[in-house]
Amino acid sequence: MAVIIDGKAVSKKLLEHIKSETEKLEKKPCLAVIIVGNDSASKIYVNNKKKTALSLGFESIVIELPENVSESKLIEEIEKLNNANNVNAILVQLPLPEHIDASKIIETIKPEKDVDCFHPSNVGKIAVNGNGFVYPCTPRGIFSLLDEYGISVRGKNVVVVGRSNIVGRPVAMMLLNKDATVTVCHSKTANLSEFTKRADVIVSAVGNPKFIKKEMVKTGAVVIDVGITRDRDGTLSGDVDFENVKEVASFITPVPGGVGPMTICSLMQNTLALFKIQNNLL
Amino acid sequence: MAVIIDGKAVSKKLLEHIKSETEKLEKKPCLAVIIVGNDSASKIYVNNKKKTALSLGFESIVIELPENVSESKLIEEIEKLNNANNVNAILVQLPLPEHIDASKIIETIKPEKDVDCFHPSNVGKIAVNGNGFVYPCTPRGIFSLLDEYGISVRGKNVVVVGRSNIVGRPVAMMLLNKDATVTVCHSKTANLSEFTKRADVIVSAVGNPKFIKKEMVKTGAVVIDVGITRDRDGTLSGDVDFENVKEVASFITPVPGGVGPMTICSLMQNTLALFKIQNNLL
Repeated sequence: MAVIIDGKAVSKKLLEHIKSETEKLEKKPCLAVIIVGNDSASKIYVNNKKKTALSLGFESIVIELPENVSESKLIEEIEKLNNANNVNAILVQLPLPEHIDASKIIETIKPEKDVDCFHPSNVGKIAVNGNGFVYPCTPRGIFSLLDEYGISVRGKNVVVVGRSNIVGRPVAMMLLNKDATVTVCHSKTANLSEFTKRADVIVSAVGNPKFIKKEMVKTGAVVIDVGITRDRDGTLSGDVDFENVKEVASFITPVPGGVGPMTICSLMQNTLALFKIQNNLL
Repeated sequence: MAVIIDGKAVSKKLLEHIKSETEKLEKKPCLAVIIVGNDSASKIYVNNKKKTALSLGFESIVIELPENVSESKLIEEIEKLNNANNVNAILVQLPLPEHIDASKIIETIKPEKDVDCFHPSNVGKIAVNGNGFVYPCTPRGIFSLLDEYGISVRGKNVVVVGRSNIVGRPVAMMLLNKDATVTVCHSKTANLSEFTKRADVIVSAVGNPKFIKKEMVKTGAVVIDVGITRDRDGTLSGDVDFENVKEVASFITPVPGGVGPMTICSLMQNTLALFKIQNNLL
């Protein structure tokens, strides 16, 4: 029977740590978020980021732009934030409307203020195990959980399922930097369970409810579930068939309450880290 | 008995193709190489690059700086090349003397002219399967060989041994972009042969002579040997125990004459590609 990894508790603890660090600062870290359009999920996410930032003593700027804003106007807004001395961290809420080139927007954010760590030059630094400014939020959150529960990936057989730019790819690079033997599986993988069955650690980030079954998991494996899907009746499901997999895993993250709460926590850690770098406090 | 992949022949064919393309151009692609110090191996490499470039009809610039050149002077030289309209591609020969920060130098090269594809922003574009300018030379060479022999990696179990920034890491990212299931193994991997024995394709880039043995390779596997080590008696050896492994592999690259000749070929392809991008010919 697995230990259930408590993401809420870890997140709470880390946020309290940020808050007490922030109290000691003369100036306050400032996170600026740009949101384009009226997507209701995006609005909720942005509001949570603002509320959390304020609760920690950060300054928060939210810039709301209409759905039909031009790409050049959006770029102009980002450049203002790039140049604003009081702004330490910039985030453009995704997804963006189709008429805007998301890659171009991400590349407009100054790498030194790229709190999501989506800019190619920041991604590239992770890819070559170089000295980056910060780490992408969800992968960083996964490592916070592993650290908190004393789980090392060094020399372990770690299988990442999913190859998104937000989770699968960066988490694979970071695992490699931490000396794991890393396999990335995805929709084109033949015989997925041949890989997962041998894994010491499975990180699943696919968005396919309960598709990691007990038979696919080795006894004693650590199972990290990044997937989150809302069923028709409103229930949230992860990628992992939690009730059955927890019988064989040694550690497992639930959905909700596992990796989910960590992402916003990492965002706040990153904001504080960028503030410190910019103020020569690191 | 494996098909022996003939890197010399593929390289020759691709170089002839570049030469005939170059003949049709009004302006000529220009590759600039900076070499610092007197390392004899580096001098041979740089001289080969120059000779090959000239043989294709390219322009070649070689800038030789003394071993004790300051970092700021080297940066100044790179910036001149960044700003020179006639220079399409810039390469700083590695390794650099210890008093120079290689990462800083690599980041000084304008990404649009970074012919080695070492700049973090170019690496990052590969990492997120984005639209980069060019691909790193040795990995690109491996894909040229696979293409030439009609070997697809899509859905295949590919094991990369070694995680260098020049080969292991970028080739893994490029394999993932081509829909392979990719595992990266390295010095901290426990039970390496458990991974290699299941691989449809093995790419070894470690520099440990003959350490991939026949027992570690599945019958019918494709074996790409990037390692190259000079024995005491001057013989070149790859990572793969070629004479024995070729009995079980379906395709195998020899050392020398396999991946080796491809790297300079990719460098020339990249120079031409950067020239075309800069002249709106792509």
